Amino acid sequence: MSFQKLDQLGHKLEALEHALAILGADEATHMAVGGGEKRAEAMSSLAGMLHAQATAPEIGDWIAAEAEQLGEEQQAAVRELRRQYTNLTCLPVEFVERQTVARMRSEQLWRSLRARNDWAGFLPALEGVMALVREEAALRADALGLAPYDALMEQYDPGNRAADITPVFAELKAFLKDFLPRALAAQETRLARHPLKPLSGSYAVDRQRELGLAMMAAVGFDLTHGSLSVSHHPFCGGVPTDVRITTRYKTSDFLSALMGVLHETGHALYEQNLPKAWSHWPLGKARGMAVHESQSLFVEKQIGRNPAFWRWALPVVERHLGEAWSLDDILPHVHHVERGLIRVDADEVTYPLHVILRYELEQELVSGRLEVADLPEAWDARMRDYLDLSTIDNPADGPMQDVHWPSAAFGYFPSYTLGAMMAAQQWAALTREHPSADDDLAKGDFSSINGWRRDRIWSQGSRWSTPELLERATGEKLNASYFTEHLRKRYGG
Amino acid sequence: MSFQKLDQLGHKLEALEHALAILGADEATHMAVGGGEKRAEAMSSLAGMLHAQATAPEIGDWIAAEAEQLGEEQQAAVRELRRQYTNLTCLPVEFVERQTVARMRSEQLWRSLRARNDWAGFLPALEGVMALVREEAALRADALGLAPYDALMEQYDPGNRAADITPVFAELKAFLKDFLPRALAAQETRLARHPLKPLSGSYAVDRQRELGLAMMAAVGFDLTHGSLSVSHHPFCGGVPTDVRITTRYKTSDFLSALMGVLHETGHALYEQNLPKAWSHWPLGKARGMAVHESQSLFVEKQIGRNPAFWRWALPVVERHLGEAWSLDDILPHVHHVERGLIRVDADEVTYPLHVILRYELEQELVSGRLEVADLPEAWDARMRDYLDLSTIDNPADGPMQDVHWPSAAFGYFPSYTLGAMMAAQQWAALTREHPSADDDLAKGDFSSINGWRRDRIWSQGSRWSTPELLERATGEKLNASYFTEHLRKRYGG
Repeated sequence: MSFQKLDQLGHKLEALEHALAILGADEATHMAVGGGEKRAEAMSSLAGMLHAQATAPEIGDWIAAEAEQLGEEQQAAVRELRRQYTNLTCLPVEFVERQTVARMRSEQLWRSLRARNDWAGFLPALEGVMALVREEAALRADALGLAPYDALMEQYDPGNRAADITPVFAELKAFLKDFLPRALAAQETRLARHPLKPLSGSYAVDRQRELGLAMMAAVGFDLTHGSLSVSHHPFCGGVPTDVRITTRYKTSDFLSALMGVLHETGHALYEQNLPKAWSHWPLGKARGMAVHESQSLFVEKQIGRNPAFWRWALPVVERHLGEAWSLDDILPHVHHVERGLIRVDADEVTYPLHVILRYELEQELVSGRLEVADLPEAWDARMRDYLDLSTIDNPADGPMQDVHWPSAAFGYFPSYTLGAMMAAQQWAALTREHPSADDDLAKGDFSSINGWRRDRIWSQGSRWSTPELLERATGEKLNASYFTEHLRKRYGG
Repeated sequence: MSFQKLDQLGHKLEALEHALAILGADEATHMAVGGGEKRAEAMSSLAGMLHAQATAPEIGDWIAAEAEQLGEEQQAAVRELRRQYTNLTCLPVEFVERQTVARMRSEQLWRSLRARNDWAGFLPALEGVMALVREEAALRADALGLAPYDALMEQYDPGNRAADITPVFAELKAFLKDFLPRALAAQETRLARHPLKPLSGSYAVDRQRELGLAMMAAVGFDLTHGSLSVSHHPFCGGVPTDVRITTRYKTSDFLSALMGVLHETGHALYEQNLPKAWSHWPLGKARGMAVHESQSLFVEKQIGRNPAFWRWALPVVERHLGEAWSLDDILPHVHHVERGLIRVDADEVTYPLHVILRYELEQELVSGRLEVADLPEAWDARMRDYLDLSTIDNPADGPMQDVHWPSAAFGYFPSYTLGAMMAAQQWAALTREHPSADDDLAKGDFSSINGWRRDRIWSQGSRWSTPELLERATGEKLNASYFTEHLRKRYGG
C-alpha cells in the first residue's frame, strides 16, 4: 500500500521533471529571446512544486512503513528513494532560502566581475557563499553520518569518499607531472617529422549536421527517441524517451562540433537505455555525475579519439564533407596536447591536473584550512606546479574561471576526472571480454561494445553506489592504472 | 489578503499552463516521434495538477471573502475568476471521469472508423457521448442558470446566447442561399474573360519561410516574443511572451502556407498584446474562441484577402520568390469560391453554411429533438438545401467529418462564423474611424489598424463578455450586415 503511494508519487514527480527538462532544453534551443523572464518564473514555480512534493513529510512515513514483503528490486527502489529523500530534506528550509539568495547574487556578480577580472570586488560574495557551504557541509555531514566534504560529494556521486579518491588522484597526479612534459616532447618530435596539416576549408552547417546525425545513429543514438539541435553551449537534456542533445557549428572547424556531438551522444545513450519500468523512481535514473561523465567520455575519448574508430569514420566524413583525409592528417588534431589555463579547453592529458587542483583546493576551503582571500596565491602555486603556468595576475582565468564555486557547487569537480578514469577502466574491462573491440570500431560496428555497456552500466540505473557500480561492471575498484596506461599508449612519450 | 492569495494562486496556475502550452507546441514541432507516450503521461498529470489547484475549495472562500475595498480592475479580475471557477467546478468529479473515458474511447474509434467510412460502427459510441453531453448541459444549465445549449456555449464564449445568435444566423443563411449561386456565376463570368493563371513553380521551403517571417513581422508579430515552425496542422500555441505559430509547406503551393501564416499571426497578435500585468489571472487572457477567431480572420480575410493588401504584398512576394505576379493573377486564387463537403477547406462564402448546418443540428441533438441515429439523413437534407451537395452515402464527410462531436465539444461550432462576422464588423468600425485603412494596407502600414485593435480588443483581455466586448469595440451589437456587405463587395454577384 505504501509502495503503491510511492509509485503514484513517482509518476507525479516524473511529470514535473519532464516539464522542467523539456522547458530547459527548449529555453536553450527554440525559445523566443523575449520569453526568458516568464520561462524563468514558470520553471522556478514548477521546481518549487517538485521540491515540495518530493519532500512531503508523509513520504518519510511511507518509506518507514515499507521494508517487509517487497521483492528485491522493489526494496532497491525504496532504498534509493530513501537516500534521495534524506539528501533532499536534510537542509532546513530557512537555510535553503538564505543559501539560494546568496548563490543567485554571487552568480550574477561572478558573471559581471569575471568579465572585468575583478577578484577584489568578487571576494566578499564568494566568502559569503563559502560560509554557507561550510554550514551546508556540516548539516549534510550530520544527517548522513559522513565527513563534511564526503557529504557534499554524496549529492553528485553516492558512495564517493575522499579517502578512496585521494590516493588514486595522488597516483594520477604523480604520473601526469612526469608524463606531460614527455608527451609534449613526443608530440613535438612527431610534428617535426610530419608538420600539422590544417583541416581547413568551409563546411556548411547543414552538411556538418548531417555528418553529426550519421555518427550519432551509427554509435547507437535512437533518433526516434531524441534529436540534435543547436545551442550556445552543447548539452544533453530532455527526457529518456526524448533526449535533446545540442552542438554548435563553425564552418571553419568541423571537428569541434563533431567531437561535441560524440560527447553528448555518450550522455544520451545512457539516458536512452535506462530501465524504463523504473523511470518514475530514483532507481531508474542515471547513477550520478561521475558515471554520466564516464559515458560521455567513453564515446568521446575511448571511442571517438581511438585511431581504430577513425579508420571507419574518415570515409563517413568524406561522404558528408567531401574531404579525403588520412589517419595521419586527422590524428594529430584529435590527439593534440597543450598546456592551458582553461579547464574546459583542456585535452585528456592536462584536464585531470585542472581537476585535481580544484579537488585539493575545495577540500581545504570546505574544511577552513584555506580562506577564500588566500585562494589566488594557492591556485597560482598549484597551477605553476602542475602545468607550469601562472594565474597570479589573471584571477578571471584562475579561481574565477568556473561557475561551480560561485554557485556553491563544491564536491562536483572530481566527477570529471573520475569519469575519465572510469571510462578507461570500462574500456579495459570490455576489451578483456571482447578483444576484437578495436576491429569492431574500425568496421563501425558498435553492437558488442554497446551490449556490454547496456548490460553493465545503463540497465543498472541507480541500483548501486558509484563505486559499487564500477566494481560490478569492471571486476575491481577504481584503479588509476587503466587511465594512465591509456594515456601512455595514446600519447607516447 | 484573499486577493493576495488569489494572486499567488494565479502565478502557480500560470506556471502549469506555461508548461502545458510549451509542451503541447513542442509535441507538434520538435518532439522525437518516440516521445509521445511519456509526453501524454506528463501532460495529463500536469493537467490534473492544474485542475486540482484551480478548483480547490478554498478558492471559493477567497472569492466570497472579497468584493469590498478592491479597485475597479481588481473587482473585474475577481469577477472573471469567479466565472471561470464556477464553470470549472460545476461538474461532479465522478461525471468528469465517466465523460473522459467515453470521450477518449469515442475519439479513438472516430479516428479509425472515419477512415473506413463506418457510421454504423461509430454510432453507439457517439450515442454514448451524446447522452453524456445532454447530462453535462443539464448540469451546467443548473449551475449557471442558463438554457442547456447556452450553458455549453458559455465555456467557449461567455455571454453568447442562442436567442441572440439564431436570428443573426438566420439572416446570414437567407443571404447566402441567395448569394452563393450569384457569386459562383459572377466568378464564372470573370474566369471566362480572364482564365485562371496557375501560380505554379516550385518554391523552396526556406524561401517560403522567409516570406512568411517577413509578412508576420510587417503585420505586427513581435519576433522577439514568438517564432514560426512547421507542423502537420497549423496552430498558434505557446504563451503570450513566446507565441509558437506553425504552418506547413508545399513547394508547389506557396499560397496555402502563407495564408496559414497570416491566419495564425492573427491569433498571435491577440496573445502577444494581452494585458501583461494580468497574465496570471483569467482577466488577462483572451476572451474566448469567437473573439480569437475574429482576430485570426481579421488578419487572414479582412486584411490578407483584401486587394489593397496585395498591392503591398505582391512586391514582397516577388522579393522572396522571384515571381512578378499582378493583382489579376493573384486575386482569383485568393478569392476563389467553391461548394464543397469539407468545412476546413471552405472559402469565406461557403464556410458559414457549414457552420450554420452544425449549429442547427447540434442544438437539436442537445435538446433531444434529434437522435444520433437520424443524423445522417438530417445532415444530408441540410447539405442539399444549403450547398446542393449530398453526403448520404458518405458519412465520413458528413456527420463524421469533424473531431468536435466525437470529443463531446458541443456549442463550439458557432464561434467560427461569429468570429468571421465580428471581424467584418470590426473592420467596418475601424474604417469609419480610419477611412484611409485601405491606403495603409497598400503601403504595408499596419500601425493605425493595429492601434485600433490593441485599444478595442487586445488590451481588454477578458474584461467583458463576448457580446459586450464587440459592442464596446464597434458601437453596436452583432450585426450580420457588415459581413454580408463585405461578401457582396468582394465576391460581386
